[in-house]
Parts: sequence; structure tokens; C-alpha cells
Amino acid sequence: MKKISYIDHWEEWDQEFHFYHPVKVRFSETDMFGHLNNTVPFIYFEEARIEFLTHIGLMEGWLENENESIPVVADLQCDFLEQVYFGETLHIYVKANEVGNSSCDIHYKGVRSDGKIGFIGRGTLVQISKVTGKALPLSEGSKKKLEQGKYSRQK
Amino acid sequence: MKKISYIDHWEEWDQEFHFYHPVKVRFSETDMFGHLNNTVPFIYFEEARIEFLTHIGLMEGWLENENESIPVVADLQCDFLEQVYFGETLHIYVKANEVGNSSCDIHYKGVRSDGKIGFIGRGTLVQISKVTGKALPLSEGSKKKLEQGKYSRQK
Amino acid sequence: MKKISYIDHWEEWDQEFHFYHPVKVRFSETDMFGHLNNTVPFIYFEEARIEFLTHIGLMEGWLENENESIPVVADLQCDFLEQVYFGETLHIYVKANEVGNSSCDIHYKGVRSDGKIGFIGRGTLVQISKVTGKALPLSEGSKKKLEQGKYSRQK
Amino acid sequence: MKKISYIDHWEEWDQEFHFYHPVKVRFSETDMFGHLNNTVPFIYFEEARIEFLTHIGLMEGWLENENESIPVVADLQCDFLEQVYFGETLHIYVKANEVGNSSCDIHYKGVRSDGKIGFIGRGTLVQISKVTGKALPLSEGSKKKLEQGKYSRQK
Repeated sequence: MKKISYIDHWEEWDQEFHFYHPVKVRFSETDMFGHLNNTVPFIYFEEARIEFLTHIGLMEGWLENENESIPVVADLQCDFLEQVYFGETLHIYVKANEVGNSSCDIHYKGVRSDGKIGFIGRGTLVQISKVTGKALPLSEGSKKKLEQGKYSRQK
Repeated sequence: MKKISYIDHWEEWDQEFHFYHPVKVRFSETDMFGHLNNTVPFIYFEEARIEFLTHIGLMEGWLENENESIPVVADLQCDFLEQVYFGETLHIYVKANEVGNSSCDIHYKGVRSDGKIGFIGRGTLVQISKVTGKALPLSEGSKKKLEQGKYSRQK
Repeated sequence: MKKISYIDHWEEWDQEFHFYHPVKVRFSETDMFGHLNNTVPFIYFEEARIEFLTHIGLMEGWLENENESIPVVADLQCDFLEQVYFGETLHIYVKANEVGNSSCDIHYKGVRSDGKIGFIGRGTLVQISKVTGKALPLSEGSKKKLEQGKYSRQK
Repeated sequence: MKKISYIDHWEEWDQEFHFYHPVKVRFSETDMFGHLNNTVPFIYFEEARIEFLTHIGLMEGWLENENESIPVVADLQCDFLEQVYFGETLHIYVKANEVGNSSCDIHYKGVRSDGKIGFIGRGTLVQISKVTGKALPLSEGSKKKLEQGKYSRQK
């Protein structure tokens, strides 16, 4: 297993995931090398992240037009561990790895049906103001939801 | 040449195009069959259509937030004539084939560097109100710009 | 209801659909006008078409590397009837509307959870040879599967 | 300026870029938050990386069918520094930041027309065998091309 900079203890990190969202690899998401194109896991991360945030009750407020705050992605990264192919169903696991003042470090794990991990990743989600473009502190309620999301199991 | 329902006289139709926008086929736009995925020409159509509408001076108003009217696509179609491959530069030709009261029939032609046509298509663009969702008549000025766009050459 | 060129009797056409594949609108599939971007239904059509072809037992052979024949899309069209938004779950219905010698006219219907139709469409699928690029007649077995697919219900 | 883990000295890092590939933000690449969707810079990275590899003479061999080696992306990351909007022309700068035995660390910088940096990123490109799936050492010739690519100016 190669060393991943954002993972201290692999087993612990691996076992802390509970929530997942299933996706099935589309034909249009493959490329002429015959496998999943490397730009697509980030689309899966976004879809699974929003499902996770909806699951823990945070997304709804952010999608309201009158709400000043929106979540933006400050950075994103992905490590491709195994090639993934057309038609595979992947479980995209999501967890809030660390909760900050106005941001949250969200981690991802894309697991194939044979249990092998196709790719992993992480990214910082920051709450900003639509008006000023600056970071807005997360409320205590939001932080709690994210903390609990760490241990939240799929419905 | 197979019969295309939206073309009466091929030569005439073919020669009426003047404006084009170049695109280069991205690696991520191919699929595991080794060619351009069939969903991508519609992305090229949108890009070239907006370049065309900008060129004739219609796009700017539609992009202003305070403007009530926005253009929406009512239908779209594409005929795939030749396979297209990674790295090819295509000229996406656009013309306003017919201008209606609140809509416009826009036609497309994707030409490869060897002069062969990779795909052709068309679609109705309708001006609607963001508020009511209903069709809004095009102003005489907008109609004139579209009519002239038919004969408008690339800068 | 506007007249659609590829539909003779709406009720009959509408009721002949049985197979569907569910999709949920991704955030990355919206655009700055706030709705589903018009290029995305073609991605849903492809995904649902392949699920349909898999369901009736036709897809497997086409995906084998040693097989000479592959299916290609000869044309595609979509009529956008209602705006579709982020997070909606759509049922993408698919049927083989007409089966030809080496091709098949496949029709689509994207239904929202409130029962309203968001978009409909169609496209010709042609079986060609990877070697010659020319059309290959469908076997009697394949034709039968497609004909039955017309009346095939979801598992 | 926030600290980026893969950059030691910002000015030095910034000035070592010479090659760039221009891209214009497509309408279909925006999302309902009104800006460039966060999954799209990875598409730009791939397009610019391939242009860079073509420019230094490495891509051609990898695209030949009879060639055993193909380049695969082992990891990818992006830091989003400024929001990017529809219609902007970005210069996607690319450099080979470090050349290894069978891999190369490629860095990216997406610069807006006002000179501000929209996003930066990096990723490891590894040469593998299509047959075994294992890493294949880069030839001395390939390594030299990548090293020179570091200082290679746009044609």
C-alpha cells in the first residue's frame, strides 16, 4: 500500500466510513483507454458529498435562494488505486474527517463490488457568504451534524 | 447521402453556413469504443451556438441578471455521419435557419479538417420569461440580428 | 401538447413504454440558469438504453472484444417539455419503437416524480462492423429480443 | 496566500511554468451556483497535460495501438483559489515538476485573463504496461523530453 499523505493509520481511517452512496459507471464516463476517465471520480465525490450532507441535514439550508451561505470546495484530491471499468457499481463512502471553524475536511473511498478500493480522496468544504465571498463560521448546530455524520450509518 | 428530414436542398443548406467555432476533441470526450462519445456533439452545439449569438450581439442581454428573458433550448437533434476521434479539430458551423416570433431554428454542421462532415444537427431556441416560464416575443432588433446572422461571416 | 414528428398517437406511444431506468440529477449536471443543462438528457438516454439492451440480453455480446459488431448511434433527438432541476429522480423509459434490418429506432421518455414528462426523444441504433465500419444485419435472435423488449417489463 | 503542501517557494514555482494551453469556460461547465463546477478543472488539466506531452514529443507513442505502454494518472489534486465564471478564457500552464523512474510529477496553474490564478494543481503520471498493468520505466529519451519540457516555451 502506498503512503497517502492525508491518512495516518489506514485501518482506522478505513473503518471510520459508514455512509455511502452507490453509483454505476456510465459508458460516457469511460475513455478510449477502455477504463473510467480520471476526471469522473470528482463527479462521484460531489454527488456522494451532497447525499451525505443531505443525510445529516445540512444541505437543505444551503440550497435555499434566500440563504446567504453556500458551501464551496476549496481543494480536492484523488488517489487512483485500481482501474475501474464500465458498468461497475461503486460504493462511494463519505465522512467528515475533521470539522473546523468555517470548514470541514471531507474524505472519500470508492469501493468496487469485489471489495477492492478503486480510488480514495479528500477535499475541504468551506462555508462562504454569497454576498462577500468570504468564509462564514459554521453554526454549533452545523458542526454537531458534521461531527455526528462521522459516525452516521446509512438509512 | 441519407435523407435528413430538416434539409430540403443539401447544397443550398450546406452553403448557407458562414459562422463557425473551432473545437478540439478532448481525451475525456472519447469512450471505450475509441471514438467521440455520442453525447458530446450537443456540448459543441451549445458552445458554438453561444459564440454565434455573442457574435451577432444577442447573447449579452440574455446573460444579464436583471433581464427577464433567457433563451432555452426546446429541442435538439444530431445526425452522426462519420466517426470522430480524439485530437481532431472540428469547425462547428452555426446558422439561424429560420426566425419565428419568439423562437429560432438553429442549424449546425461539424466539419473535420479533411473537409468531411462528422455530424450535423438542429434545434429550436425559444426566448422565455424567467418569471412566468412562458415564451416572450423576440424584438424586431433581435429578429434582424438573427436574420443577418444567417449571412454573417466569421470576424 | 405540441406536435412531435416521431409520434403518431400520443396515448398509444406513451403507454407502450414499460422498461425504465432511474437517474437522479447531479449538481454538476445543472448550469448557471439553475436547471438541468440541455446536453445531459442524452447522457441519460445512453445510460438507460444500455440498461435496456442489457435487460433484453443484447448488450453482452457487443461488449466482448472479439466480437466484430458494435452498436453505434446514427442519430439522436430530444424534446424538452418541462424544466428539470437538481436532485430530481427521473424515470428514463426506453422502448424499441421499430426494428429494421440492421438498425432499431429507440424511443425515450424522462418522467419526473410528479408524473410530468420532462423530456422525450428518440434515436436510431445501428449495428456496424468494427472492421469495415459498415452496417451488419441483426440476427433473427437479436431482432426478436428487440421486438420483445417493446413489451418487456422491468424486472 | 494559503500554504500549499506541494509548493516550497511560491515565486520560484510560479515562474518555472512556460507552456500553457488556452481553454474557454463552457456554459455546460457552470453549475447552479453560477460559477465553474469544481469537477471541471480536472478536465482542463487532462486537456492541457496532453497538449504539453504532445508538444514535447511524448504523446504520439502512447497513442499507438501496438505500443505496450500507456500513461495513467496515479493521483490528482486541485486547489481552487478564485471563483471562475462562464466565458472566461483561462491559460492552463503545465510543467514537469519532477521526473522519476517510471513516473513524473506534473503541476498545473489556471490563470485568468486579469492575471489572477483561478486554481492550481498537480498529479503523478505513471507509465504502465497495458499487458501487465505494472509500472514501466521511462526511457532516457522520455526522461530528457520531460526534463526539457520543464523549460519548454510555447511554440
